[in-house]
Amino acid sequence: MARMIHSMLRVLDEQKSVAFYANTLGLAPVGRFEFDSFTLVYLANDEQSFELELTINHGRTEPYALGDGYGHLAVSVADVVAEHARMHAAGHPVTPVKTLQHEGTVIGQFFFLTDPDGYKIEVLQRGAPGRFI
Amino acid sequence: MARMIHSMLRVLDEQKSVAFYANTLGLAPVGRFEFDSFTLVYLANDEQSFELELTINHGRTEPYALGDGYGHLAVSVADVVAEHARMHAAGHPVTPVKTLQHEGTVIGQFFFLTDPDGYKIEVLQRGAPGRFI
Repeated sequence: MARMIHSMLRVLDEQKSVAFYANTLGLAPVGRFEFDSFTLVYLANDEQSFELELTINHGRTEPYALGDGYGHLAVSVADVVAEHARMHAAGHPVTPVKTLQHEGTVIGQFFFLTDPDGYKIEVLQRGAPGRFI
Repeated sequence: MARMIHSMLRVLDEQKSVAFYANTLGLAPVGRFEFDSFTLVYLANDEQSFELELTINHGRTEPYALGDGYGHLAVSVADVVAEHARMHAAGHPVTPVKTLQHEGTVIGQFFFLTDPDGYKIEVLQRGAPGRFI
């Protein structure tokens, strides 16, 4: 059976993205492979086995076209309100904390964070009803 | 610390996508929330806690613009050659199996699969050198 192991995003600036994911999500590089035309960086932490793969195409300066198909990477945190305040104070672009209801039941409390290339990250309260593991 | 819990993709046809992910990756719906303008479906299996979230916007018929930023979701399998043969025989669009080397060392054996909306899925040999967990 297939095991989901990473999601890959193309980013323009390796240092900026690595710093962003460290400061916001506590992800650190656990692998780095440099090729002639591109570099791959794998980011992880101890919370799960899944990794975020960043591809840096050497010499690319034009912003990536994000389209409207890919949505976001979601993370759960122990205290979504505290994480929102911490990221906001650090100057990261965050939307207000919102609560999602379905048929009168709260199924999630979350905010969205935007990474240096414009990719959205959903930060969810861990343990909320719904699928928010 | 943040735990990566899902990746969200917008898809046009819920039934087609759910069937595709079941047949190719062994993922099954573990949650479904229908709202007025959209439906959320969470796909998972027992291989990990990470989930794939599909968003179906009701009434949307125009294909999503995939852009060139988002890369792919990657999965690992026990036997990449066997999985390639199985998916190919079932009529799913797959690229040939390739081997990736870095500085003379094999770091992965993989192929790419395309889902009904055009999203790429990298299917990697589990246990290969590199980050292929």
